Amino acid sequence: MNQRRDDEKWMREALSWAWKGKGTTSPRPSVGAVLVRDGQIIGGGHTQRGDGTPHAEIMALRDAAQNGADAHGVTAYVTLEPCCHWATTPPCCDALIEAGITRVVVGVHDPNPLVAGRGIERMRAAGIEVTQGVLERECARAQDDFLHHIVHQTPFVTLKSALSLDGKIALKSGQSRWITNSQSRERAHLLRHHSDAVLVGIETVLSDDPSLGVRLEGNWKQPTRIVLDSRGRLPLNAKIWDGAPQLIVATSQAPAENIDRLREKGAMVLELQSEPHSSHVEWRHLLAELYALKIFSILMEGGAHVAGSAVAAGIVQKAAFFVAPMLIGEGKSALSGFEIGDLALAPRLLDVQIEQLGGDVLVEGYF
Amino acid sequence: MNQRRDDEKWMREALSWAWKGKGTTSPRPSVGAVLVRDGQIIGGGHTQRGDGTPHAEIMALRDAAQNGADAHGVTAYVTLEPCCHWATTPPCCDALIEAGITRVVVGVHDPNPLVAGRGIERMRAAGIEVTQGVLERECARAQDDFLHHIVHQTPFVTLKSALSLDGKIALKSGQSRWITNSQSRERAHLLRHHSDAVLVGIETVLSDDPSLGVRLEGNWKQPTRIVLDSRGRLPLNAKIWDGAPQLIVATSQAPAENIDRLREKGAMVLELQSEPHSSHVEWRHLLAELYALKIFSILMEGGAHVAGSAVAAGIVQKAAFFVAPMLIGEGKSALSGFEIGDLALAPRLLDVQIEQLGGDVLVEGYF
Repeated sequence: MNQRRDDEKWMREALSWAWKGKGTTSPRPSVGAVLVRDGQIIGGGHTQRGDGTPHAEIMALRDAAQNGADAHGVTAYVTLEPCCHWATTPPCCDALIEAGITRVVVGVHDPNPLVAGRGIERMRAAGIEVTQGVLERECARAQDDFLHHIVHQTPFVTLKSALSLDGKIALKSGQSRWITNSQSRERAHLLRHHSDAVLVGIETVLSDDPSLGVRLEGNWKQPTRIVLDSRGRLPLNAKIWDGAPQLIVATSQAPAENIDRLREKGAMVLELQSEPHSSHVEWRHLLAELYALKIFSILMEGGAHVAGSAVAAGIVQKAAFFVAPMLIGEGKSALSGFEIGDLALAPRLLDVQIEQLGGDVLVEGYF
Repeated sequence: MNQRRDDEKWMREALSWAWKGKGTTSPRPSVGAVLVRDGQIIGGGHTQRGDGTPHAEIMALRDAAQNGADAHGVTAYVTLEPCCHWATTPPCCDALIEAGITRVVVGVHDPNPLVAGRGIERMRAAGIEVTQGVLERECARAQDDFLHHIVHQTPFVTLKSALSLDGKIALKSGQSRWITNSQSRERAHLLRHHSDAVLVGIETVLSDDPSLGVRLEGNWKQPTRIVLDSRGRLPLNAKIWDGAPQLIVATSQAPAENIDRLREKGAMVLELQSEPHSSHVEWRHLLAELYALKIFSILMEGGAHVAGSAVAAGIVQKAAFFVAPMLIGEGKSALSGFEIGDLALAPRLLDVQIEQLGGDVLVEGYF
């Protein structure tokens, strides 16, 4: 009982390391690790930015060494099962074994077919005591994008919305700035940082002209911008071009001159199929192309038609709804063009988490 | 610092007594009180059911006496300033003074013009140390209906809604059972018990045929039912008649035969003005009539037109929105016939409280 409580306490520390790296480690998961001896942390770390850089376990071992601490006989807490394969770095399992770690506590199992339990097997074979599933849900949440794309080989899609308590994202006039408060908007910027790419429909660009950048103090990653723009109407002076490391325009029926114009300005233009009986880009085709471009997590930011069509297509894994405690009455609903025949068929969120951000409420969950 | 923390701890105990009595003490507030000596509760109680019955302070003193405890020199924690006037019972101030209480900690000030600080003055004059404003917001929430109606002389109105995360209260087909889960529905029954009356529009009766009763295990109060039914169309076999201690039908343009029919069946029929350019009952006229009937708190349960018109009229004090983590897309919005010209004018909730009920989220706040 006490052991379990202690394990959870240290896993929370490992989790806070994992969250620090979130958004910068793609295509790898952002893992966190701490080393604990006699109720004291002697080292901690997270997967480093970019590819080919050290994983969390290695960073924690280095941190302990720098602190002059001996890692022999200590317990390691790792949010994700340590890897056992040579990828761009040597296997972490081996590093833990060599360092003389005697117990490893794992948050969530790595479903990567190259790992999938073998990391745990190898450590056990080396005489390490392994405990699994400590704060498993919390660890899975911290690595939700990785756990999805590694299994399904398609990007992890989060639908973000900022809406009133009565479900409106704008007044009838279109006014939507601002429904949510500054704390919510700051958190939304963090969600952008956590994602490889941010996606919007052309109507949102034409009406709101968002930049979709991460505007926070500090050293943040700017996500790739994706615009669903079947006819290639994106204005060359839209703010979305500003500061985007890459701008992808997904078209399906765009005239050649529009495509040329966008490519000349520097956009990557995808020419995709349309959905049947519609001019809209076909979702699964788009996601396959984005996955091939190594975009593994996408924050979908609107508008209502894009959201409705994505939910209808079943390609959304997570919702992050920022609910402002106000009533708008007649206005624009969060999802349009989506309808269900029976309540039992409504898409439902599981593992719902709520958080109060000032007066606003962030509701998150998984479909 | 420690004193404050202790005071808050004991005030929470007094608050839990207050909540026990909630809904049964109208027109009086449901107050809670505990007596504490040397870090131990020696007595507790809440305002009793009905009128002319003892207040919380008296119940706590009696409880202490029954426990064989001496109340001399103890501290009393009371969620609302003790009364100092003869109403249907003698003043509680005097009872506390006579019992030899040496310190009284008060949650919220009583704005009743017959009390309004005089209770505190009288106790101080008798040498009692009085501390005010401990858990003031929490105590105000527990007595929100009383604090409103005693000042404004109009009923306290709570708008209840059960809706999806995207703000829909029903599918396009009208299906609405059930959007929220059983925990939410149980809590909604408790809100009925907390209210003098429950109010719905005739369209809700005709489409959903709700009973609006409190269906919980135990000894609960059944609220008065109020139907907004300008033309007096309420069916005589509607479920809303069942178990209602009183059924009030608010009409404005009902033919005499409809009114007679409803009165014969036992309803109280109010014949009211219409809103200008509309057949709807005029809100302020209705509330004045209900107040005269000693209905001091109303839970408004639908439908969308009633909710929209009440919010537009500015007669709603509190919202209790049960949000289910599902998406409905095209469907019925929570408020209709209500619209704002600028976001700055949107009705906003203050003092927002959230609570997770299974996967559902209850969002409460005050306008």
